[in-house]
Amino acid sequence: MNNNSRRQTVGVVGFRGYSGAELVRILERHPGVEVVLLEHRSDSEQRVLPLGQKPPKVVPATVEAIAQEKVDLVFLATPAEVSIALAPGILQSGTRVIDLSGAYRLRDAETYSRWYKERHTAPELLAKAVYGLPEFYRERIRDARLIANPGCYPTAANLALRPLLDAQVVDRSRGIICDAKSGVTGAGRKPSLRTSFCEVTENFSAYGIVEHRHVPEVLQNSGLGEREFTFAAHLLPIERGILETIYLRTERVEKAVDLLSIYEDYYAEHPFVRLYAPGKFPDLRTVQHTNFCDIGFVFDAESQRAVIVSAEDNLGKGAAGQAVQNMNLMLGFTETEALL
Amino acid sequence: MNNNSRRQTVGVVGFRGYSGAELVRILERHPGVEVVLLEHRSDSEQRVLPLGQKPPKVVPATVEAIAQEKVDLVFLATPAEVSIALAPGILQSGTRVIDLSGAYRLRDAETYSRWYKERHTAPELLAKAVYGLPEFYRERIRDARLIANPGCYPTAANLALRPLLDAQVVDRSRGIICDAKSGVTGAGRKPSLRTSFCEVTENFSAYGIVEHRHVPEVLQNSGLGEREFTFAAHLLPIERGILETIYLRTERVEKAVDLLSIYEDYYAEHPFVRLYAPGKFPDLRTVQHTNFCDIGFVFDAESQRAVIVSAEDNLGKGAAGQAVQNMNLMLGFTETEALL
Amino acid sequence: MNNNSRRQTVGVVGFRGYSGAELVRILERHPGVEVVLLEHRSDSEQRVLPLGQKPPKVVPATVEAIAQEKVDLVFLATPAEVSIALAPGILQSGTRVIDLSGAYRLRDAETYSRWYKERHTAPELLAKAVYGLPEFYRERIRDARLIANPGCYPTAANLALRPLLDAQVVDRSRGIICDAKSGVTGAGRKPSLRTSFCEVTENFSAYGIVEHRHVPEVLQNSGLGEREFTFAAHLLPIERGILETIYLRTERVEKAVDLLSIYEDYYAEHPFVRLYAPGKFPDLRTVQHTNFCDIGFVFDAESQRAVIVSAEDNLGKGAAGQAVQNMNLMLGFTETEALL
Amino acid sequence: MNNNSRRQTVGVVGFRGYSGAELVRILERHPGVEVVLLEHRSDSEQRVLPLGQKPPKVVPATVEAIAQEKVDLVFLATPAEVSIALAPGILQSGTRVIDLSGAYRLRDAETYSRWYKERHTAPELLAKAVYGLPEFYRERIRDARLIANPGCYPTAANLALRPLLDAQVVDRSRGIICDAKSGVTGAGRKPSLRTSFCEVTENFSAYGIVEHRHVPEVLQNSGLGEREFTFAAHLLPIERGILETIYLRTERVEKAVDLLSIYEDYYAEHPFVRLYAPGKFPDLRTVQHTNFCDIGFVFDAESQRAVIVSAEDNLGKGAAGQAVQNMNLMLGFTETEALL
Repeated sequence: MNNNSRRQTVGVVGFRGYSGAELVRILERHPGVEVVLLEHRSDSEQRVLPLGQKPPKVVPATVEAIAQEKVDLVFLATPAEVSIALAPGILQSGTRVIDLSGAYRLRDAETYSRWYKERHTAPELLAKAVYGLPEFYRERIRDARLIANPGCYPTAANLALRPLLDAQVVDRSRGIICDAKSGVTGAGRKPSLRTSFCEVTENFSAYGIVEHRHVPEVLQNSGLGEREFTFAAHLLPIERGILETIYLRTERVEKAVDLLSIYEDYYAEHPFVRLYAPGKFPDLRTVQHTNFCDIGFVFDAESQRAVIVSAEDNLGKGAAGQAVQNMNLMLGFTETEALL
Repeated sequence: MNNNSRRQTVGVVGFRGYSGAELVRILERHPGVEVVLLEHRSDSEQRVLPLGQKPPKVVPATVEAIAQEKVDLVFLATPAEVSIALAPGILQSGTRVIDLSGAYRLRDAETYSRWYKERHTAPELLAKAVYGLPEFYRERIRDARLIANPGCYPTAANLALRPLLDAQVVDRSRGIICDAKSGVTGAGRKPSLRTSFCEVTENFSAYGIVEHRHVPEVLQNSGLGEREFTFAAHLLPIERGILETIYLRTERVEKAVDLLSIYEDYYAEHPFVRLYAPGKFPDLRTVQHTNFCDIGFVFDAESQRAVIVSAEDNLGKGAAGQAVQNMNLMLGFTETEALL
Repeated sequence: MNNNSRRQTVGVVGFRGYSGAELVRILERHPGVEVVLLEHRSDSEQRVLPLGQKPPKVVPATVEAIAQEKVDLVFLATPAEVSIALAPGILQSGTRVIDLSGAYRLRDAETYSRWYKERHTAPELLAKAVYGLPEFYRERIRDARLIANPGCYPTAANLALRPLLDAQVVDRSRGIICDAKSGVTGAGRKPSLRTSFCEVTENFSAYGIVEHRHVPEVLQNSGLGEREFTFAAHLLPIERGILETIYLRTERVEKAVDLLSIYEDYYAEHPFVRLYAPGKFPDLRTVQHTNFCDIGFVFDAESQRAVIVSAEDNLGKGAAGQAVQNMNLMLGFTETEALL
Repeated sequence: MNNNSRRQTVGVVGFRGYSGAELVRILERHPGVEVVLLEHRSDSEQRVLPLGQKPPKVVPATVEAIAQEKVDLVFLATPAEVSIALAPGILQSGTRVIDLSGAYRLRDAETYSRWYKERHTAPELLAKAVYGLPEFYRERIRDARLIANPGCYPTAANLALRPLLDAQVVDRSRGIICDAKSGVTGAGRKPSLRTSFCEVTENFSAYGIVEHRHVPEVLQNSGLGEREFTFAAHLLPIERGILETIYLRTERVEKAVDLLSIYEDYYAEHPFVRLYAPGKFPDLRTVQHTNFCDIGFVFDAESQRAVIVSAEDNLGKGAAGQAVQNMNLMLGFTETEALL
C-alpha cells in the first residue's frame, strides 16, 4: 500500500460537466490525492467566484502537460468521441485512465458501432479495458491501466440482476423488464431544448425504449440475451438520481427471505450495496449525494413474481462516485475513502 | 336532446379537493349547466379573493338542500367513506350521482373490503352502479342513476390494454407489467408528510407495488387474472399527470401497424383516445389540462414484445374530465362539451 | 363593430417560442379570428403529434405570403432584431402589426441603442408605434397600425404605480423600489446554460439589478426619473408568472382604503386589473394562465410606507394575453374576448 | 483547548425536523463530538432503513437522561414554546444550551409577546442568553451558557447591514428595504396545506410583509428603528436557501470599492462571510449545503443607491451550520470544524 507515501496526483478532463464537477468535489475531500484540472476545450466559461477564492489551476489536457504535472491517473469525464481521441496517448505515456464515457465499455468494435452509431477508432483498447464495477471485478480493477467506468443505468440494473442470475433463480424465458427513471444531469450539461427548464419541469417522458446504448452493457455483464431483457428509460424532472423498477419471474424460490439471502451473500463484502427488508424500498432521497446503490424488492411466492427497486445517484454510484471507488482500488487506498 | 331546454343544475361535493376544484373549473365553461357547491364539511377554509369577485354560493350537502336547489345530478369528489354515506340518500331522492371515489367501482362488497380495508355499508348499490368509462360502456352510462367514475390509474391501463385483449393478440401467459407514475394531486389535498413539498421535490419513489387498490379495477374491466397483471405505482415530483409504461408479449402480430390498426378500429368513434405512430410516444405535456388519454407503443416483431406508453392528466381523463364526459352522456349533451 | 362580418385573419410569426405558442393557444379559442402560422426560420423543429391531428398550415413570413393569405394583422413574437427587420415591410403592405418584442417600445432611437446595445434601423416607426397597455392607452390602441406590446416586467410595475403617481400621493423623493421575480419562460425558448433545468431547479438568482432593458419602459410610462426608480430582476425556478414587490413612501394618505380607492377609481372600467383588500395579496396561482394583473398592498399610515404586490402571468398579461387584448381593441372585438 | 482530551457529548432535541436533521448530519462529521438524540415527542415516526443500518440510539429529552448520558451541550431544534419549556431545566442541571428557536433571541419579554403572540414563561433567561451570531459576538459566545441561535432571515440581513451601519455610510432617513425569499424548509417539517407540494410547486407568494417575527431581531442587532427597516418575506418553490435583496441609500461613499473595503475590513477574520466584486452576486447554488453567507452588491455613486444581495442556506448559516459554529466556539474547537 502506498497510502503513506506521497499524495498522488490525479487529473480530471471534463471538469465542467456534471460528472466531472462531482468528481472534483469528491476528490477534494480525499486525503490521498491532489487534483489537477485538465482543459480540453477552447471555449472556457467563467464562473463568478467569491473574492479571495482563487480559481483552480487549469492545465491543457495534453500528454506533455500530464507528464509535466506528474499525473498518476487521469479521469476522462468527456463524451465518448473525446475519450476515444484522448485515452490512447495518455495510456502510452504511462498514465492510467478511468474513462467515464461509453467509449470502452463494450468488448468489440462492432457492437460499439451498432449502438453508438460510429466507428471505434481505438478498437485495440476494447480488449484491454476493464469494466469498472468493483462489486463484480474488484481484483481486475486493481491492476488495470484503463477502466471503462460503467454507465449509470447498467450499474443499477446489473447490481440488482446478477446475484439472482448467478444463483440461477431467474426464469429467463419469461423475460426481464427494467423500467428506468433518471434525473436530468444524466443527459449532460450541454444546453439543449430537451433539457431546458421549461420543457422538463412538471413533465415526464419516456425515451430510448428497447433501443438504448446502455442495453448492451447490461447484456454483456449479465449474460442475458437481447430478447430476454427489455429496457425503457424515462426523464424525471429532478437533478439527480436513478430509480429502476425491475420485473422478473423466479424459479424455485420459496420465500422472500431466500431472495434476500442471495443478495446478502453476494454483497457481504461490498459496502456500497445496501439491502432492504422484503416489501421495503429505497427512494431517491436515500441515495442522492452518496455512492450507494440501494436494493429493495417484493416477492409473491405463488406467482414467483419479483419486483425489484434499485436506486442510486446517477452522479454517484452511476458515475463519479464509482470512478473514485475504482481509483481507490487502483491506487491502493481503502475502497471507501472519500465515499462514506 | 334537452340541450336547448333549460340549463340543468349540477352539484359538486368536495369542491375544495383537487378533483373537485378541477370539476368546477371545467363545468364553469360548460354552457348547459349551472353549478351549485355542496358543503359536507364544517371546517371551511377561507380563500383570499380579489375584491368584487363574490365567493360562490355554497349550500349544505343535504338531501333537502339538493332538492330545494333542484339539482339534477350530484358529483361526489369525496373520499370513499363519504361517498358511501352520501350516495344512497341522494339517489333515493331521485337525483343522479357521479361518484369520483372508489366506493362503487368494484362489483362485490367482499372485493371492496379486501382492497379498501373496510366493510361496505351500501353493498346493494354495487350492482346498480355503472362503471363510467365511456369508451367501453357508453350506452349503459346514458341511463345510469349512479356512475362509478374510474380510478386514474385504471383508466390509462384499461384504455391501453382492452383493445389488444379483446383482439386476442396478447400472450397472457407471459404476464402484463404496468409501471405507473403519477403526479402528487393524485394523492389528494389533505396535508401529509408524504405530500409535503420538501419530501417530494427532487425525489421519486415507488409505492403500492403489486398491492394497490386500483389493481382490481383493471382486472374487473380487462378480464385479466390477478397473477397475469403486475402493477407498481410511483410518485412523480409534479402536480398532475399519469404516465404508464406497459410491457407485454403479443401473439400472432406481424408488424407494428397491425397493433395500431387494432387501436384505431377500437377508438374510431372515441375522440378522447389519441394514438401515435409506432415508435412515437406522448409525454405528460401533451395531456395535461386535457381529457385525452394518449397511447403510443414500440413493437419488436421477432420477440413479440410490445411496450405501450399511456398518458393522461390524472385530474382530467383520470378524474374530473372523465366525470364531465359521463355527465354529458347522462344529461344528453354532446360527449365532448366543455372538454375540447 | 365588425364582429358579425367575416372572421378576420391574423398571422403569428415566432409561433414556436413560448409567447408565440401561448398566443396561438389563446387565438384558437377566439371565435372571431382565423390563425395563420408565419415561418421566419429555416430550421423548423418537428413536433410529435397524435395521429389524425394534422400539423397546422405554415406559410413563409414574407410580405407576399401575408398578402396572399389576406392577413389583417400580424403578431411578431420574435426577438427585437427580427421585429425591426420584419415590421416595416408588413406595415407598408397595409397590414397592421402587434410586436411583442422591445423593438418599438421606446420613443427614441438613442434610448433604444443605449439599453438594447445596438442601433435601431427603423427609427421612423418609433414615433408611430402605440404602446399597447390598454389600461392607459385604450383609445389610441383602437386605431393604431403598429402596437408595441409592453414588456412583462413593465406591465406589472406600471399598472401598480401609475394610479398612485397620477393621484400624486407618492413621495418620489424617497425613491421607488421594484423587486421583481419571474418564471423562466420570460427568458425565451432558445436553449442556454442559464435556462437549463439543472441550473435553475432548486436555485434562485438575481440578475439585471438597476440596469435592465425594461427600466426605460417604466420610466417612459410613469414619468419617473431614472434615479427615482430602482429595479432588480430575479429568476424563479418555475415556468410562468411574475410577482413584483414594490416599496414606496406615500404623501398625504390617511388610511389604507384611501389607496384602495385610488386604484378602484382608476381601474373601474378595466376588467383585467383585480384588487385585493388591504393586507391581502395575490400569489402566482391566482394569475397563471390568465390575462389578469392582480394588485394587493399593505400600508402603514404612521410611516407612510406602502408595499405593493403586483402579479401577472408573464405569458398572459405580460405578453400574449395582452397582445390579444390589443388585437380585440384594434379589430373591434369585445376587449375580453378569448381572455376570460 | 480541550480538543485533544475526550470527545464531548452533545444532545439534539428535535432531530426529526429539518434543522435538527441537518444538525445531526453536520455533527456526524465532527471529529470532536458524539451525538445523542433526545426525544421530546411521544409519536415517533419510523424511517425505512437499509438492513444492517441500526437506528440511532434515542433517549428521552429529560434532565435525568441528559445527566446520565453526560451530555455537555444540548441543541434545541424545537418550536419556541418547547424551547421555553425545556431550556430552564437543562441549564439548571449545568448543561449548556444552544436554542435554534426564537424563544431567547429578543431581549425583553414584552417584545417577545408582541411578536410571538404569547407570554414568555422564562423571562429571566432573556437577559442571560447570548445572541449567537459569531461574526458580531464571538467572544461572548465562548463563555455563554445559553445561546439564542439567530433566525435565518436576520442572519443574512444583519451580516449585510451592520458593517455599513457601523461605518455610518447609510442614510437611515431614506429607509432600508429587505426583500427576502426563502425555501420551504424554513417553514418547518410539520405538514400543512401551505407547504404541500401541489400548493408550492410552480408558485411564488409573499407573506409576512412588514410584520414578521424576524423583524425585531434585525432591529435589535442593527440599531435600526422600526420605521427605518421594511421587510417582506416570500416563499420560493425550493427546499433550501435564502436570498435577500437589500436596498438602501448611502452617504459619503465615492465608489463601489469603498463599500467593498468596509465589508472586507469587517469580515477579515471571519471565514464564513464571502464577498464578491462589485456588480457580481451569489445565487443559492453557491451557498446551499454550506455555512457561508455570501454578499454581493451594485452601487450607483451618483444616486448613492446600493443594492445588496445576501445569500445563505437557511439550514446552514441560517440555522444548523451557525449552531455548530457556536458550539465550536463554546467547546473550544476550531470555529470552522465540520463546516468547511
